[in-house]
Amino acid sequence: MNIQPRKSTKDLTAYDPGLFKGRYKLDANENPYGIPAGLKKKILAKAAALELNRYPQPGAGLLREKLSKGLKVSPAQIVVGNGSDEILLYLMLAYLEQGEAVIAPAPAFEMYGVIAKACGGRFVPVPLDDKYDIDDRAILRAAGENKPKFIFITYPNNPTGNCFTASRIKNILDNTGALVVIDEAYYEFSQKTFLPLLKKYPNLIITRTFSKAYSMAGLRLGYMISSAAVCENVNKVRLPYNVNSLSVFIALEALKNAGVIKKSIGIIRKERARMYKTISQKYETIKSDANFIFVRFNDPQKAKFAFEKEGISIRMFGKGPAAGWARITVGKPAENSAVLKIIKRGV
Amino acid sequence: MNIQPRKSTKDLTAYDPGLFKGRYKLDANENPYGIPAGLKKKILAKAAALELNRYPQPGAGLLREKLSKGLKVSPAQIVVGNGSDEILLYLMLAYLEQGEAVIAPAPAFEMYGVIAKACGGRFVPVPLDDKYDIDDRAILRAAGENKPKFIFITYPNNPTGNCFTASRIKNILDNTGALVVIDEAYYEFSQKTFLPLLKKYPNLIITRTFSKAYSMAGLRLGYMISSAAVCENVNKVRLPYNVNSLSVFIALEALKNAGVIKKSIGIIRKERARMYKTISQKYETIKSDANFIFVRFNDPQKAKFAFEKEGISIRMFGKGPAAGWARITVGKPAENSAVLKIIKRGV
Repeated sequence: MNIQPRKSTKDLTAYDPGLFKGRYKLDANENPYGIPAGLKKKILAKAAALELNRYPQPGAGLLREKLSKGLKVSPAQIVVGNGSDEILLYLMLAYLEQGEAVIAPAPAFEMYGVIAKACGGRFVPVPLDDKYDIDDRAILRAAGENKPKFIFITYPNNPTGNCFTASRIKNILDNTGALVVIDEAYYEFSQKTFLPLLKKYPNLIITRTFSKAYSMAGLRLGYMISSAAVCENVNKVRLPYNVNSLSVFIALEALKNAGVIKKSIGIIRKERARMYKTISQKYETIKSDANFIFVRFNDPQKAKFAFEKEGISIRMFGKGPAAGWARITVGKPAENSAVLKIIKRGV
Repeated sequence: MNIQPRKSTKDLTAYDPGLFKGRYKLDANENPYGIPAGLKKKILAKAAALELNRYPQPGAGLLREKLSKGLKVSPAQIVVGNGSDEILLYLMLAYLEQGEAVIAPAPAFEMYGVIAKACGGRFVPVPLDDKYDIDDRAILRAAGENKPKFIFITYPNNPTGNCFTASRIKNILDNTGALVVIDEAYYEFSQKTFLPLLKKYPNLIITRTFSKAYSMAGLRLGYMISSAAVCENVNKVRLPYNVNSLSVFIALEALKNAGVIKKSIGIIRKERARMYKTISQKYETIKSDANFIFVRFNDPQKAKFAFEKEGISIRMFGKGPAAGWARITVGKPAENSAVLKIIKRGV
């Protein structure tokens, strides 16, 4: 039988952690506030008028139009995805030839490597410098050697939480022929963006998401902003009905109510400062521009156990470039206080 | 700059028809009835309790469990997708090496060829025989020459509407080493399935969807059923959060209320018979096992215009193996009567 899986998938493993059973879920950088209950109820009641038996509008034209106004780009410069991870998949499917390299700093969002391998690419991680900043010269050196199709940069970075030095990223943009994807999933928490540089760099792609600040992780909506030419190539491989009608409808309503929803951002930023102050007194940590904090524990196994005992789920890195570190989402004040109690006690 | 799109995508074009503006939408094989309004309202009100700020359960475990009971397979034999077209993408991503062949009858669901090309595969369409049945010998001959990784068969076929002769499909299963995907998107309208043969053929994969009989095209939910080994390989390339929480919740509620929802199937089958009777008196057509009717018009351009003038959108095939034919979805009685009025008058 000719039913061997594709060779490029041999390093990959299926991922299905099942249902969360703890008390506080601080492992996935979700916004703990959600869309306010009353507003959510109102939106869903309104959604009953949608013809869910019909296929969604292909390409989510209405949402692209609305987004384009806020971003001051053309709707043709936006592609909406079933989560921004689907956008990453389409980008690689559209551009990556077999064996071509994909470069990203290490540590970074793990899906860059997973999707690159799934698409038959070669993943080349380049370590951060000793201040957890992007090592632009090392990346350009690796680019010279590997002729990558893509360089992925998360801004602010996940899991370290910091925004890399902008001039270093510009140095990369000025000196590479690769497509540079700047993943701004946590943009609303940093308020720093490369959007104004889109006009200057035709190889620049920016991704954003409704999963984090907009509290819509369960609804799966992300998008990319780039040149119309890059978007058209992505649209060639995009499944025509990749985003569902309900999520698009809720996103449109959420944008109308952005003020209410974004209130949570202010609270989270304040809580982030409170957490940083206590954590940095006890453990090595990095000043965060996102909604999570990266912290190094002396004994990761013991730390994991200490948090689990209190029903708190955090993201612990057992191996890879972030080994020994944990990523803790900034939750609601009571959740954060429970974390800080453990931190103060020591793990 | 190294920003050329992947060579395998050069034949592909982006697809975005925009918003439907007609009176009757009979071009996409949607169930016109939808989830009954009262039930939809109730389900959406209940959905307000969902934590949409949280990522969905990866792998949609609860839905797989529920489906597995009805299908009498293990949950490990099911993978849920963001529409069954996403399942097709994952299958090819998981298995298809560059340049490997993908075989399907012609005409068939167009996405087989599109996705095969997007994944760097080689698409080999094999014409139906002169009775619009699958040409099993021609397919096996093409398989011998092309050593395909996949053979895709829609059952009932889209756009012809008929179920191919089962013994011919079995002949293919008995004589190929390729993965055979039997796409049962319209199963509820035909009530014929290859599910009992899963145990016999480890290379058999069946796909189903909530888009058609279950009236949930806008919600994007499909799934595959196969061996646990094939499912695991697909899960390796599946994006962890590929299906959104709301669609999964609504699907679970829809399954609880399957009786109500499936009432529409009986009506559609009856209407299908009424349409066939009139259409077959005037034009060449094929007896349908699905929720649409395939009909050949003498002058396709004129026919297209005649339907458009009445605000009726049907699927007209201008080129390819179905050129000159139209696919008309069985709608509500008044919609069907409007179609039959045009047919009787002649186009």
